[in-house]
Amino acid sequence: MKNGSTLFADFTLMADSKPLRTLDGDPVAVEALLRDVFGIVVDEAIRKGTNASEKVCEWKEPEELKQLLDLELQSQGESRERILERCRAVIHYSVKTGHPRFFNQLFSGLDPHALAGRIITESLNTSQYTYEIAPVFVLMEEEVLKKLRALVGWNTGDGVFCPGGSISNMYAINLARFQRYPDCKQRGLRALPPLALFTSKECHYSITKGAAFLGLGTDSVRVVKADERGKMIPEDLERQISLAEAEGSVPFLVSATSGTTVLGAFDPLDAIADVCQRHGLWLHVDAAWGGSVLLSRTHRHLLDGIQRADSVAWNPHKLLAAGLQCSALLLRDTSNLLKRCHGSQASYLFQQDKFYNVALDTGDKVVQCGRRVDCLKLWLMWKAQGGQGLEWRIDQAFALTRYLVEEIKKREGFELVMEPEFVNVCFWFVPPSLRGKKESPDYSQRLSQVAPVLKERMVKKGTMMIGYQPHGTRANFFRMVVANPILVQADIDFLLGELERLGQDL
Amino acid sequence: MKNGSTLFADFTLMADSKPLRTLDGDPVAVEALLRDVFGIVVDEAIRKGTNASEKVCEWKEPEELKQLLDLELQSQGESRERILERCRAVIHYSVKTGHPRFFNQLFSGLDPHALAGRIITESLNTSQYTYEIAPVFVLMEEEVLKKLRALVGWNTGDGVFCPGGSISNMYAINLARFQRYPDCKQRGLRALPPLALFTSKECHYSITKGAAFLGLGTDSVRVVKADERGKMIPEDLERQISLAEAEGSVPFLVSATSGTTVLGAFDPLDAIADVCQRHGLWLHVDAAWGGSVLLSRTHRHLLDGIQRADSVAWNPHKLLAAGLQCSALLLRDTSNLLKRCHGSQASYLFQQDKFYNVALDTGDKVVQCGRRVDCLKLWLMWKAQGGQGLEWRIDQAFALTRYLVEEIKKREGFELVMEPEFVNVCFWFVPPSLRGKKESPDYSQRLSQVAPVLKERMVKKGTMMIGYQPHGTRANFFRMVVANPILVQADIDFLLGELERLGQDL
Repeated sequence: MKNGSTLFADFTLMADSKPLRTLDGDPVAVEALLRDVFGIVVDEAIRKGTNASEKVCEWKEPEELKQLLDLELQSQGESRERILERCRAVIHYSVKTGHPRFFNQLFSGLDPHALAGRIITESLNTSQYTYEIAPVFVLMEEEVLKKLRALVGWNTGDGVFCPGGSISNMYAINLARFQRYPDCKQRGLRALPPLALFTSKECHYSITKGAAFLGLGTDSVRVVKADERGKMIPEDLERQISLAEAEGSVPFLVSATSGTTVLGAFDPLDAIADVCQRHGLWLHVDAAWGGSVLLSRTHRHLLDGIQRADSVAWNPHKLLAAGLQCSALLLRDTSNLLKRCHGSQASYLFQQDKFYNVALDTGDKVVQCGRRVDCLKLWLMWKAQGGQGLEWRIDQAFALTRYLVEEIKKREGFELVMEPEFVNVCFWFVPPSLRGKKESPDYSQRLSQVAPVLKERMVKKGTMMIGYQPHGTRANFFRMVVANPILVQADIDFLLGELERLGQDL
Repeated sequence: MKNGSTLFADFTLMADSKPLRTLDGDPVAVEALLRDVFGIVVDEAIRKGTNASEKVCEWKEPEELKQLLDLELQSQGESRERILERCRAVIHYSVKTGHPRFFNQLFSGLDPHALAGRIITESLNTSQYTYEIAPVFVLMEEEVLKKLRALVGWNTGDGVFCPGGSISNMYAINLARFQRYPDCKQRGLRALPPLALFTSKECHYSITKGAAFLGLGTDSVRVVKADERGKMIPEDLERQISLAEAEGSVPFLVSATSGTTVLGAFDPLDAIADVCQRHGLWLHVDAAWGGSVLLSRTHRHLLDGIQRADSVAWNPHKLLAAGLQCSALLLRDTSNLLKRCHGSQASYLFQQDKFYNVALDTGDKVVQCGRRVDCLKLWLMWKAQGGQGLEWRIDQAFALTRYLVEEIKKREGFELVMEPEFVNVCFWFVPPSLRGKKESPDYSQRLSQVAPVLKERMVKKGTMMIGYQPHGTRANFFRMVVANPILVQADIDFLLGELERLGQDL
């Protein structure tokens, strides 16, 4: 920067010499481009992407895919035609997570109202920190959180949408330690006694990651035994608490899980709440996966006792298909703990001399600054479906799960790992050559090799995607997740038939 | 759940009795809905939302807005017509951050290619953790990060997109302490000596929030003096390091800022890197705001020395208008530090017996589990504009800033807080009644009341939005941010003229 007048001359020059293809300030061209892109999205991602007769994925080896996509960023811009081709290619080679044969994760499905909410969110592109720039979404987030809290069983409380369930869990840990030791915020963990938190061996790995990130260290996580169904054993929780205390640690939090990642198990919340009450511990429930069951009057008993929690993590982007990410952290607290724990009163953003009620500036409740709007997609879907429609979906998922379980029992070569209590169905496909060979010493090892081979085959064929994993001493098994709202019996039949077809020579 | 056969009967029943209005499995209705919503988005958010003759915001008092929006979530679903009305209302009452008169934050503008990338991202709804379910985006993220690293000056390295710059800064702090004390991950901060990190008083508040969240405590943040332009004073950094050491703390990180939030100041990176080198400290550069200047050959000297950093946080969602959120954390490290620090090898997700190179499963580099795809919007925009087009935008923003500064100097009643070096222009509007009264004892207090009043007036009128804040001992001043790519001189003229109109009676 030399001096003002030179730069001013530069500016005049530049104002008349825009690069050839920029659309800046050309609304007609902007609209035309976006309409074309939207047409591609409808054709490729929505119509083909949810059509069972299309591929769920178009596998390419990484090196080949790199070449096909021509990823390198250049100095020159590209023509509109080229850009539209790129949009098509990106969608074509991406996995279709809304496809009725995508069973791979704890999310699946493409809810059109939720997608509409996401498109609107993106077009508005605002940050969820002040009423000033997000008036609709500040009020809407509060209303959605209120509804989720009501389903937990709370008439009051607090909460916030977080960038994913892992961060919700970290928030809970941080809030629990701050409530116990407010000094921690200023003086840090060195000013505190050694802390201990408790969770079962079936918990999500974010508890451990969180303990490390928050400076507690993974050693602070005491692992409580789970029963053979994957549920935390409250008696062992008692034992672990005594053990930690005997070792000089201060227990402060128990993280129970409602819907474990692999087995879909629900910890016994009432019994765990009793233990927490006895010891004065913060009860966090990681219901990222299972929380949506609260919408079903038939099945919500799985979370009995959740109203006794201090905090709940619940991801409607999973079973409710709201779209990544939609992760609520709900709190029973009414003492403004979130803001006291996380607030830093930045004067450039949270001015106190604003002309409206600055309690509406909720941004200081979070550890982020800018925060995405994650409420609209859920709100719009809920408005369209109603609580009843969402409940129907949950009940439908349970019923289809039951159908799958019955089919697995009927078919040769399929073996349940256990009777599911949720929509995770864990099972082995035992190929012809291994049937009746359970007593063979290498059975387990050979069975473990089946799932990876079948996975490779299905992905390369593009017919479906389902996850597998080892678990404790169990050989690799498939984890079917019945979550996509468009699933019907035929999709379940296809799953089993396709595993038989893919594995008949093994 | 009573027994299998009962549930199976339920299922059959349910399969024939979907709620009336669900679109599940009805692709024609899904497409029709989404086309209608997209039409509304184009009309309301894009066409009107970027048109200078439309309002930038439609102010309503919270209670009135609640009623207008009818936010409550019900049991019954709603008709398609009602849902479309709701979409229209949500957009209508939301702030238009792409509007040429939205100057309120460090982001502004609606890049059509970035928006196209965001719509595609939402339609694909995948998580950025494995090559298996995000093949395109795993490769694309790496390519985009490589390009950003190259602009920093690194041929190798690592990185990841984070949910916002605050979390990028936390990542940097966590990585720095892990590199110094790998034990921290397992044993926690109590096993470590007291740590100290250093940043200037002009730094973003996320450094302090991060220190609290990570268990270090806000006391561990040592505040280094800044000069009158807002730049960290390296000599004071030296002093603070000695002081911390004398008090028994172990310095481990300096966070320099490239583009401070209010003043837009750039810390002298080379001098700070010298200090870090002398003391063996991790140098993090919070370039969330200023990083995009690296694209401009004319202005990138503001970040001279950045190549000496260990980590850089850079938010292309700010000056490049990629859309919230697009926040890169870039690392010079080539030792897989990210994965060693954050990894937990979840066996259900990061199976080691996959049929492809599992190094492509980058999800274990992060502390989240599911992670949004944040690379496509930036990649597509870059492909369309080219590096040159983006550079032109940056240069244009600097040139328009210069124009604004010259206009402020020319006009009565406007006073610069200081000559800007970036696109933040801090200035007072001195209303007629206060002109020439600088010596009056209540001048500063009365001047402080001007910005809130003008802000209220502009928001209620809907003509523009610009932020203000106090700063140190300075009375409330406006912070103009020249970031929207569609800005032209007329918008700058409007800003100043509108302040004169709104404040002529004060």
